[in-house]
Amino acid sequence: MKENTMRTVTPARLRDFIDSSFRACDMPPENAGRMAELMAGADIGGQDGHGVFRLPQYIERIRAGGMSVDPGISVISERPATALLDGGNGPGHLVMSRAAEMAMEKAKTCGVAWVGARYSNHAGPAFLYARMPLKENMIGLYVAVGSANHMPPWGGTDMLLSTNPIAVAVPSNTRPAIVLDMATTVAAYGKVKTAADRGETMPQGWMIDKQGQPLMDPTRAGEGLLLPIGGPKGYGLSLIFGLLAGTLNGAAFGADVVDFNADRQTTTNTGHFVIALDIAAFADVDRFKTQIDGIWDEMKSSDRLPGVEEIRLPGERLAATTAERMANGVPIPHTLGKRLDTLADTLSIDRL
Amino acid sequence: MKENTMRTVTPARLRDFIDSSFRACDMPPENAGRMAELMAGADIGGQDGHGVFRLPQYIERIRAGGMSVDPGISVISERPATALLDGGNGPGHLVMSRAAEMAMEKAKTCGVAWVGARYSNHAGPAFLYARMPLKENMIGLYVAVGSANHMPPWGGTDMLLSTNPIAVAVPSNTRPAIVLDMATTVAAYGKVKTAADRGETMPQGWMIDKQGQPLMDPTRAGEGLLLPIGGPKGYGLSLIFGLLAGTLNGAAFGADVVDFNADRQTTTNTGHFVIALDIAAFADVDRFKTQIDGIWDEMKSSDRLPGVEEIRLPGERLAATTAERMANGVPIPHTLGKRLDTLADTLSIDRL
Repeated sequence: MKENTMRTVTPARLRDFIDSSFRACDMPPENAGRMAELMAGADIGGQDGHGVFRLPQYIERIRAGGMSVDPGISVISERPATALLDGGNGPGHLVMSRAAEMAMEKAKTCGVAWVGARYSNHAGPAFLYARMPLKENMIGLYVAVGSANHMPPWGGTDMLLSTNPIAVAVPSNTRPAIVLDMATTVAAYGKVKTAADRGETMPQGWMIDKQGQPLMDPTRAGEGLLLPIGGPKGYGLSLIFGLLAGTLNGAAFGADVVDFNADRQTTTNTGHFVIALDIAAFADVDRFKTQIDGIWDEMKSSDRLPGVEEIRLPGERLAATTAERMANGVPIPHTLGKRLDTLADTLSIDRL
Repeated sequence: MKENTMRTVTPARLRDFIDSSFRACDMPPENAGRMAELMAGADIGGQDGHGVFRLPQYIERIRAGGMSVDPGISVISERPATALLDGGNGPGHLVMSRAAEMAMEKAKTCGVAWVGARYSNHAGPAFLYARMPLKENMIGLYVAVGSANHMPPWGGTDMLLSTNPIAVAVPSNTRPAIVLDMATTVAAYGKVKTAADRGETMPQGWMIDKQGQPLMDPTRAGEGLLLPIGGPKGYGLSLIFGLLAGTLNGAAFGADVVDFNADRQTTTNTGHFVIALDIAAFADVDRFKTQIDGIWDEMKSSDRLPGVEEIRLPGERLAATTAERMANGVPIPHTLGKRLDTLADTLSIDRL
């Protein structure tokens, strides 16, 4: 059997499996349900490195005492348009959905709100939280300190920075929402892990080794440095995002970041923030969303470079993959499937 | 005489020259003084493509009726933490310093504030506005729609996007502030213009032509497309920044952007926004600023790749250039000097 042969599962079955896994670790049902919804949402949206792929790691961390299943998420400080949360060492999904809710509530009055968190954990793909304010006709923005350092400052070799991603979601009317979700590195580390899992090699430009030579074998990723987008610019973005999502929140940044791929027990003190921006504070909502449709069409209909078949918008693949996987199911690569089977057996729950 | 031979002027003389130029165009003294302070600040900080270099263009636009010297900057809509300004077709410097002041005032209470503007114009380098909140122990963030489209959507050839820059400034204690100021393109268009002015060629990777071939002659920039950082990621950032700074504010974006290098009369309706984030809403200010010092030192002391002499922080060159030019003056390239002499003669003011 080829290493990358896949099985396919329905979204409902995937959610149920994730839900059961967390319940088997004594996570309260409400929390398990939210985890299942968000993690399956990552897979349904095509972020294969950030959904159920991470489940064994989360469960291991919970069982090792490194993450709380019932965190007492609390407000450390608050202003009319800001808040700082203590995530109580809970999963980032729970902490940042709470943060997004608070941000939306505050933005209804204030026009904008910025909610940060410390003592959180890996939260899956950034788009999940940027997308939450869309339902209130708000623009969402989310930034996180990545959960392992794989990038040095520009020109350096010490692993002081992470992929520190940003996601921004802007609602449209009839077209898909514009959703940017990007690491400040050329490749997110989740993609490196997915490539390793699938037995694929990485394109040149994703990583270099400590001598500055290209590194293309994802199983050697531990020796490699992720490269930032635009050289010093991506380094600068990663640094600034780390200061805003980490340091400002009293969360880990720089040498303090715990490699959650290698360590199951140490509190990660992961930091993130989410911004909700109320469109109605600036524009007529319907008119704005129709303008976004128009911009979508304007970009799509641009003349193209030789060899280019189609112009894409950020969020276009997310929308297409979501529709496709909602209809036809989520593919689970063979290696991952085996890992999930082992997890199911360990937890005494039904296999996926 | 070589094309790039320079003269050097003191910061005070440079400010005075800019101030006199605008006064000669009937700009009220208070506005002219602020323009001089900010434009000279661009030169002093080393942003040679965004300071006095732009003066002849601004003056031409004012004289052609394309920009107001005494704009009635007004508040279109306001919430506790947001505002939307109508810049009255004034210079971006005046509009966005007003926006930054409003944002700081609102952030004192609300913790964060987001102030956008429409009917503004080119405002010079982004760092000027991101840096303003530093004096209130706030983090500043500024984004603009660039003043001419030189980039297509990724894979396209229609000039629908600009360099749409972002700047973020974070205060430190004893080290220089961390100040990121970057275009979402590999090179800002100002750098292309400066290269043309100096008779230099551009590095490969700044621009391509419409067949996708590298373009390195800056005098042919009109035929070229700027390349985004990180390929589709930089395209995504430029698009999102354009939506937030342009469309949301009712300002120009996409095909509506007026090329202010080619057109002196049409109202540009330039959009920007600035965010002020009050550090005290999240952290102890002194402790935070000392942490930024520590992160500065941590990055600087990273081991380095072979051949790299020094790790740099965003804002390090800005601080060093500012100190150097405050002490030793601002170099004015010969071509620019001649252009400014012509301008002075036209306005009947003393030459620089």
